[in-house]
Amino acid sequence: MPVLVMKFGGTSVATLDRIKRAAKRVGVEVAKGYDVIVIVSAMSGKTNELVGWVNETSPMYDAREYDAIVSSGENVTAGLMALTLQEMDVPARSWQGWQVPVKTTSAHAAARIEEIPNDNIMGSFGNGMRVAVVAGFQGVSPEGRITTLGRGGSDTTAVAFAAAFDAERCDIYTDVDGIYTTDPRVCKKARKLDRIAFEEMLELASLGAKVLQTRSVELAMRYKVKLRVLSSFEEQSDEAGTLVCAEEEIMESNVVAGVAFSRDEAKMTLISVADRPGIAALIFTALSDAGVNVDMIVQNISEEGRTDMTFSCPTDQVARAEAAMAEAKTTGTINFAELIADTEVAKVSVVGIGMRSHTGVAAKMFQVMSAEGINLKVITTSEIKISVLIDRKYMELAVQALHDAFELDKAA
Amino acid sequence: MPVLVMKFGGTSVATLDRIKRAAKRVGVEVAKGYDVIVIVSAMSGKTNELVGWVNETSPMYDAREYDAIVSSGENVTAGLMALTLQEMDVPARSWQGWQVPVKTTSAHAAARIEEIPNDNIMGSFGNGMRVAVVAGFQGVSPEGRITTLGRGGSDTTAVAFAAAFDAERCDIYTDVDGIYTTDPRVCKKARKLDRIAFEEMLELASLGAKVLQTRSVELAMRYKVKLRVLSSFEEQSDEAGTLVCAEEEIMESNVVAGVAFSRDEAKMTLISVADRPGIAALIFTALSDAGVNVDMIVQNISEEGRTDMTFSCPTDQVARAEAAMAEAKTTGTINFAELIADTEVAKVSVVGIGMRSHTGVAAKMFQVMSAEGINLKVITTSEIKISVLIDRKYMELAVQALHDAFELDKAA
Repeated sequence: MPVLVMKFGGTSVATLDRIKRAAKRVGVEVAKGYDVIVIVSAMSGKTNELVGWVNETSPMYDAREYDAIVSSGENVTAGLMALTLQEMDVPARSWQGWQVPVKTTSAHAAARIEEIPNDNIMGSFGNGMRVAVVAGFQGVSPEGRITTLGRGGSDTTAVAFAAAFDAERCDIYTDVDGIYTTDPRVCKKARKLDRIAFEEMLELASLGAKVLQTRSVELAMRYKVKLRVLSSFEEQSDEAGTLVCAEEEIMESNVVAGVAFSRDEAKMTLISVADRPGIAALIFTALSDAGVNVDMIVQNISEEGRTDMTFSCPTDQVARAEAAMAEAKTTGTINFAELIADTEVAKVSVVGIGMRSHTGVAAKMFQVMSAEGINLKVITTSEIKISVLIDRKYMELAVQALHDAFELDKAA
Repeated sequence: MPVLVMKFGGTSVATLDRIKRAAKRVGVEVAKGYDVIVIVSAMSGKTNELVGWVNETSPMYDAREYDAIVSSGENVTAGLMALTLQEMDVPARSWQGWQVPVKTTSAHAAARIEEIPNDNIMGSFGNGMRVAVVAGFQGVSPEGRITTLGRGGSDTTAVAFAAAFDAERCDIYTDVDGIYTTDPRVCKKARKLDRIAFEEMLELASLGAKVLQTRSVELAMRYKVKLRVLSSFEEQSDEAGTLVCAEEEIMESNVVAGVAFSRDEAKMTLISVADRPGIAALIFTALSDAGVNVDMIVQNISEEGRTDMTFSCPTDQVARAEAAMAEAKTTGTINFAELIADTEVAKVSVVGIGMRSHTGVAAKMFQVMSAEGINLKVITTSEIKISVLIDRKYMELAVQALHDAFELDKAA
């Protein structure tokens, strides 16, 4: 029988009633003839409780013990979901990570799945079992210790199972009903997308972060797993939610799929850097060594041997970046006049695979911003994305204007 | 290095503070040079919460899922205890049942430990680890599913580890400071025993039930594991608590070690049973088939082919016993006039290995009861115990009088 993977997040299994509701959705798919692999998170709040105890006990905790403790939340949900399905006369059993086994690296609290042998669960399907309820977010290391994949890792578990079992689809049930052209809280005209390409989804990560973990989308793209995001709180049809899929499966699409934004961005400018070959490498190696995640980089035209170098990074890494640059100046590694930090900025991006074949998107974006009187501080582009850094106070205005200009409220 | 097993029950690990206190006790033993195996229960209340969810989800639950869910409480405590010890610079790690592995039968929710290979944990001790924190009450079946040993199973886990690792002693930390000659709430003169023989402990189960699980004492007796019961809430010396040990290790002891009692006993009498060979077998087979746990049995002298048969059973099994006997009468299997149930009785027992070599204990017991005007309804004896069934209203009086008469307030 074809295999379907269904993943339910913490809010979807927060209470026994919600577990029952989720189980009913599973029952519908079983009735259609699927063998179903259900991936569950911990009941919402449980993981935070456990993490709180760990932090209180040992602020610099041993990640192996953290994993052993924190993984217990998913085990409870998996057992309860299996019991609920059994009560509905659906043959089901729970599987903990080590039982499958979900083989991971030894990088505790941030492990990567290396292999999921499918013989144990396929064997159970062969023996009349219809649902395998798997505790998400966990696995087992080569040393036989329990590992976790990091927060949000249940999405990754789901996609990895869909790949390992060649599943027809991987349905991610969550508390929103799909992926939108932009955040509806910022732009009321935001429209739910029926389909979106993997590449677009990755670029829209800032919109999708609450919905889909980036790593799970990367994995889905690599293994061509059809990923559907839909609400566990609404009656569902086969066409509900948003399908994240390969570009080829999207017949008709807008040039621009969505508008993403991030408030969590700071602009840093090194004034009057002594410009010589290798200076950029020195600067960004120093920042990387200090744990600063640099996003955008712009270098102005060099004049008289000196240049200004601008980059952006998350706001909570500004202090770290300043310390790294101050040290580099003291030791004489990097010669510059001043470092100016601007934390009152935001990043706005338009994303769409259509950009590959359509020109003029950047020009149109800049015209819109100009018409609204919004100054562009930094511009960067990729094959399917154009991002600009602007004053944070104009962020909502920019998002709404771009959404209108690219007619994202209308389907292709 | 010699191995010590230390077990902490649910109240002893109920909060992070209590876990810290328990960890300090472990640290003291490590400093003495022991490699320590710590067996932990779930934080008190946690197991009940999980059992409540299981019952609400599925009243006739699949015991395999029950075990997978309920065992998670101990895993959390084991991890937190390991972290707490690490914070004290004591090298420690947690072990879940399947990691050791604790190999059990497949009798879910009531599994029996079959084998505990000690190479993994001994290997960790060899690599500089000083404490193995093991989640109690759980194991793994031959099918690779998680099993539990039944409520209170953590004591059994502790003793089984002490046997498997040839431990010098198994210390059971709990919320009382030892085994008493009788329940201090019933008799103020009750005295804490320094030592008690395994056989006596088993007979005193009704006193020790809250302290030590019967199965753990049986196991300790079979493998000659020295078992010490002591409080986790008091400063401890090496001589604290009560040592449960082999008879040979008790130099001097009173003839009677303690007075046990049970309010939970009903007296059932079958009047005028047609007496023929095999009738007792018929009666007690029918009761056993109905799930009635018969304790004492007395048959009066047979007159004119008919006899009265008296037995006792737990009060909550009276209805079941009555139903079984009524059915046997209807089908003609057992011929009797009437079944009389007396639920206003109590059982009082004196227990002591000294009885083997000292005569007159029974006589003295009966004299004491007679002097207090207490009528004896049923009497049974074993090699080291004499039990009587009396009116429940006299129970406290009987316990106090016997405690005085056998001078249990004085050490031997």
